[in-house]
Amino acid sequence: MQGNSVWMIDQLLLPFSFELLEAPTFLDTRRTIKEMNIRGAGAIGATAGYGMAQGFIEGEPDEAKKALDSARPTAKNLTYATDRVYEAAIGTGSPVATALKEAQDIADEDSDGCFKIGKYGAELIYQKSRELGRRVNMLTHCNAGWLAFVDWGSALSPVYVAKRNETPVHVYADETRPRSQGARLTAWELRNEGVSHQVIPDTAVAIMMERGMIDLVIVGADRIAANGDTANKLGTQSVARNARHYGVDFYFAAPLSTIDRDCPNGEVIEIEQRDEDEVLYMQGLTDDNEVTRVRVISPDSPAYNPASFDVTKAVDVTGLITPKGIIKPNPATIAGLFR
Amino acid sequence: MQGNSVWMIDQLLLPFSFELLEAPTFLDTRRTIKEMNIRGAGAIGATAGYGMAQGFIEGEPDEAKKALDSARPTAKNLTYATDRVYEAAIGTGSPVATALKEAQDIADEDSDGCFKIGKYGAELIYQKSRELGRRVNMLTHCNAGWLAFVDWGSALSPVYVAKRNETPVHVYADETRPRSQGARLTAWELRNEGVSHQVIPDTAVAIMMERGMIDLVIVGADRIAANGDTANKLGTQSVARNARHYGVDFYFAAPLSTIDRDCPNGEVIEIEQRDEDEVLYMQGLTDDNEVTRVRVISPDSPAYNPASFDVTKAVDVTGLITPKGIIKPNPATIAGLFR
Repeated sequence: MQGNSVWMIDQLLLPFSFELLEAPTFLDTRRTIKEMNIRGAGAIGATAGYGMAQGFIEGEPDEAKKALDSARPTAKNLTYATDRVYEAAIGTGSPVATALKEAQDIADEDSDGCFKIGKYGAELIYQKSRELGRRVNMLTHCNAGWLAFVDWGSALSPVYVAKRNETPVHVYADETRPRSQGARLTAWELRNEGVSHQVIPDTAVAIMMERGMIDLVIVGADRIAANGDTANKLGTQSVARNARHYGVDFYFAAPLSTIDRDCPNGEVIEIEQRDEDEVLYMQGLTDDNEVTRVRVISPDSPAYNPASFDVTKAVDVTGLITPKGIIKPNPATIAGLFR
Repeated sequence: MQGNSVWMIDQLLLPFSFELLEAPTFLDTRRTIKEMNIRGAGAIGATAGYGMAQGFIEGEPDEAKKALDSARPTAKNLTYATDRVYEAAIGTGSPVATALKEAQDIADEDSDGCFKIGKYGAELIYQKSRELGRRVNMLTHCNAGWLAFVDWGSALSPVYVAKRNETPVHVYADETRPRSQGARLTAWELRNEGVSHQVIPDTAVAIMMERGMIDLVIVGADRIAANGDTANKLGTQSVARNARHYGVDFYFAAPLSTIDRDCPNGEVIEIEQRDEDEVLYMQGLTDDNEVTRVRVISPDSPAYNPASFDVTKAVDVTGLITPKGIIKPNPATIAGLFR
């Protein structure tokens, strides 16, 4: 946040161009979340926290809260941030200063928590590489790196820490259709970090696990229920099911702000619908280096885009990598994180 | 086949333009198979049979057999056809006429067999619609319609017969990355046949089964082993695993020429490798209606394209829809088809 504006990387333009985007009012900030200029659990949370502070600056905290909370329903981090800023600042003598400080605290805690996730996860990667006597081949789905958070990311933070520790790790980024966050964002981040990686089609996950080419899966999370069921990007549940079938360890990595203790299980998590255009069209770079949108589905055939997220049952999950350590996903261990 | 040339629909141009392609020599015919101008188990078989006849016309049957057999390794129908034409014609008094007749017989049997698959499969769809009291929502993966065969197709033949019988059926065609045969070919075929359909991302299959939106899966097959293990387009095994998990019936539809009785199980089926460019680039239609190739993966990031096919274990399969009826996939029932 600079002055009254929230600044962010415009993720809709990545990986083909890098631009910063300014959101001067809470309504602008809401739009960047809804239109997905900013996306990813932690980044949505930090942005929503600043947007809530803008609501206090603009003298409309209630309107701002309502607008921001309805921008995207699934990511727990959004209402975690707006609730916290709203409750800290409302009715106080200096609501604007209080809101700004609380929003900054949320962003700082995200950065700090994600670094701790990185340390615990890197230890896991290190142990695996010792056990295997070679580089660890890790799979991730969608993007849960620093683009999706404030500094480190959740699922990719362990990779970045492992890289700094010189633990040999290679990342397979699955494409993550329809929005291709794996192919566009995770690949772009990994290249910027100098991490060895390859993009694979979503359809290749099972055969690669069957062939022993994937040692470990770490993905991010949008909302973790009290029993460990977890909502994450569409396609995650199938990756987890295949991992369990082939005996590959599967982890969700998330800060505590992603855990929804009021949500008993995955069946009651609200799942966002998305537009069929996300399936019909893809953006890419032509041979002349122009960014162009093309229709990739047969003309006159309709598409169906059932959901932005799906829910993975706790039974298919090896563990949760949190800032407080790695835990088995069950009600007791999850409650224990908050003690 | 007209004169000495094999004619086919150029599937690389679909769905954006429709053109016929002429292959005047067996080497041209081989190239159309290798480059995938023609693809699909039955279509590869029929084309290879004609290509083998061209080998006799050109006086080089041994060279032609070797060239054609190496064009694509996984589809059983290819060597089924070249073996049959070669063995029928070699050493006979009129090899060219014999080869041409045998190749034509193979194509005719494909058409006849696929129509029978359609009748058995349509009965299945009809029973399901009676049981449910509504339209049947069927999922298919890749393209196993008439583009992939001579006239009717395997997986889509039941849909076309059901449509003619006025049984209400809706087809979800999954995109089938990386080559998007579902989005490009199956959608195009279904639209031409006037069948109600929608294209879905491959990542949406599990959640749609979880929500009860898919009643039945029918897919084609490239090679069926003697124990019922089946090679089909990359991604099929994951669809089958999800179907079993959610209790959705999953069928392979195939003519007898796809069954490889010399192959004991899926572990010994040779799986073709493909190029990473299939993942890196997608062809589509710009807003100005121009067909353009765009790079859809972050620049400078490499891709990995592990396989064109994967193998589904017989245990995950409800049944095989064959020209001789619907059978459970096991060694005894499969051997029984040849009695």
